[in-house]
Amino acid sequence: MSSLGTPDPHPGWLSEEDLTHVRHRLPLLYVEAIPVRQADDGSVTEVGLLLRADAGGSFKRTIVSGRVLYAETVRAALLRHLEKDLGPMAFPRLPASPAPFTVAEYFPLPGMGRFSDERQHAVSLVFVVPVAGRCDPRQDALELTWLSPEEAVSPTVTAELEGGRGALIRSAMAHVGALD
Amino acid sequence: MSSLGTPDPHPGWLSEEDLTHVRHRLPLLYVEAIPVRQADDGSVTEVGLLLRADAGGSFKRTIVSGRVLYAETVRAALLRHLEKDLGPMAFPRLPASPAPFTVAEYFPLPGMGRFSDERQHAVSLVFVVPVAGRCDPRQDALELTWLSPEEAVSPTVTAELEGGRGALIRSAMAHVGALD
Amino acid sequence: MSSLGTPDPHPGWLSEEDLTHVRHRLPLLYVEAIPVRQADDGSVTEVGLLLRADAGGSFKRTIVSGRVLYAETVRAALLRHLEKDLGPMAFPRLPASPAPFTVAEYFPLPGMGRFSDERQHAVSLVFVVPVAGRCDPRQDALELTWLSPEEAVSPTVTAELEGGRGALIRSAMAHVGALD
Amino acid sequence: MSSLGTPDPHPGWLSEEDLTHVRHRLPLLYVEAIPVRQADDGSVTEVGLLLRADAGGSFKRTIVSGRVLYAETVRAALLRHLEKDLGPMAFPRLPASPAPFTVAEYFPLPGMGRFSDERQHAVSLVFVVPVAGRCDPRQDALELTWLSPEEAVSPTVTAELEGGRGALIRSAMAHVGALD
Repeated sequence: MSSLGTPDPHPGWLSEEDLTHVRHRLPLLYVEAIPVRQADDGSVTEVGLLLRADAGGSFKRTIVSGRVLYAETVRAALLRHLEKDLGPMAFPRLPASPAPFTVAEYFPLPGMGRFSDERQHAVSLVFVVPVAGRCDPRQDALELTWLSPEEAVSPTVTAELEGGRGALIRSAMAHVGALD
Repeated sequence: MSSLGTPDPHPGWLSEEDLTHVRHRLPLLYVEAIPVRQADDGSVTEVGLLLRADAGGSFKRTIVSGRVLYAETVRAALLRHLEKDLGPMAFPRLPASPAPFTVAEYFPLPGMGRFSDERQHAVSLVFVVPVAGRCDPRQDALELTWLSPEEAVSPTVTAELEGGRGALIRSAMAHVGALD
Repeated sequence: MSSLGTPDPHPGWLSEEDLTHVRHRLPLLYVEAIPVRQADDGSVTEVGLLLRADAGGSFKRTIVSGRVLYAETVRAALLRHLEKDLGPMAFPRLPASPAPFTVAEYFPLPGMGRFSDERQHAVSLVFVVPVAGRCDPRQDALELTWLSPEEAVSPTVTAELEGGRGALIRSAMAHVGALD
Repeated sequence: MSSLGTPDPHPGWLSEEDLTHVRHRLPLLYVEAIPVRQADDGSVTEVGLLLRADAGGSFKRTIVSGRVLYAETVRAALLRHLEKDLGPMAFPRLPASPAPFTVAEYFPLPGMGRFSDERQHAVSLVFVVPVAGRCDPRQDALELTWLSPEEAVSPTVTAELEGGRGALIRSAMAHVGALD
């Protein structure tokens, strides 16, 4: 969903060239997941943010994010990207309901909306996903950091989140009732 | 979202040919709205279904449905399709939240999921939209019929709804608490 | 929430006599949970219903249900009733969000609403709760039966559910997208 | 829901004395509404906050709030309190779904939860309610002020909101996607 993203491992039936073409002609469908740790009573105690190095060598935080492919269900895409970004031992607890807690719209030009993605117009179904196991980020993510809800919405962390996703973290924490 | 649909009036930056190409390579993003009438206390009293003639001359029922275009917000797409399908005097009350009550996935091949669309893989954000004004279906829709929640989920009506949308109407009525 | 319910094990600061008094003067706050089994991708594969014998010796099905006590959080009440009704090894996955998927209103007189409870006016926050472990109903529940979503909404099972909770099961299955 | 609240005009079948008694023995069920103005596409442009003088003569902001009575539906209680607090010409658009966007728990002692109410333990179903008409606060509310979403979540306004409801306004604005 940004230049920091991993190369798309499954371009579906679209060549990379074709994909570049449609990125400027259609909104692309994404799923995103905000990993959380829960107390026994379900309340959220920690939020997991990924740390990545971008092309220029600077570090950015992000969440689990990726495209839904042709003929793939939203649930399968969510599971695939969670495994790709958190590793095989994370044991994410996927939601029973297919309805996202919010929809994030990423636009390539500034000022078109709350979220930005210079590569494309992407519309993302965003889920809060409790994670019970050990997270072992694969691919290009350097690490997953667990932060308290308060830390996760702090100005410092917000500034490190790419594409305006700080607002998404705040929405998620408001949704789960984790902030005073 | 099916062969009954109106020709896409705004193909965005994609030619019809390009769109046909992409329809088999990417999931397309749709918005759908189930129009309802409400009592003063907000409870749903009636559901509005569109009646359309398909290419073969038979009649099918459907709901407000259409594609989200490049650089268009989900809200703007919803408003555009509501106006296109219900006319300019319907005064739809768009939801305050961008989160759909459910997500419907339409696949071109039978057995891939609950909903079908022979033309494409489409993922639809579905909203219940109260409508206060007069509905005047435009374009190819013959009429909008208001049914009680019970009628709207009856086997007869379910069989007349295209693409498996009977399950969507039942989900909506369950969501608003309109069924015993 | 009905004559089948277990005696309230923690009457809070109210004597049983006081509780009887207020049952006819205030709506009582309940939490309810519909236990489900999930596939890896989060989709619901089974629904757990409790079987109980009522005072007259006939059998009724129900869901996890109980009162919120004075000074108790909704989350704590949900956890307490899940443990009481499913046993200590059920490992329920409580929701991250405090918002119920629906609110059920039980009235003592027929015709006042969709749900009935002859003892009282009760308002229940209803949650779908995935359960990963072994369920071992305690107290007066005879057993927990796992049914497919289709079985759980069948007319036979609906008729066995007390207080109109068949509509609640259908709402839950619609919410999680488990029905065609 | 606080000492600023209006005397309960309909004590149901409970005397004021009885009500005082149960306030310390049972959680009381409330409904709350955050009035908003919407643009045509449904996005929230303004939030309505009530200004009230408390017993000590100082001013506090609050939202529409009140008890659900015995034998009253949640929808009827919501409509009643909206009319009481906003006047008869506000034309609130009550939600189609009975599910609140969040549940707020008010406890009489500090540190028990996010929200406080020195009088009682109250559990509140909270809704965002678009208001189309003219608001004319009745009873003891001095006025209704329309603020932008940014103003409504500012530290100044948060400090003026009683019972910790600043967190509730922030949750609502996150829910409707109104904040960057």
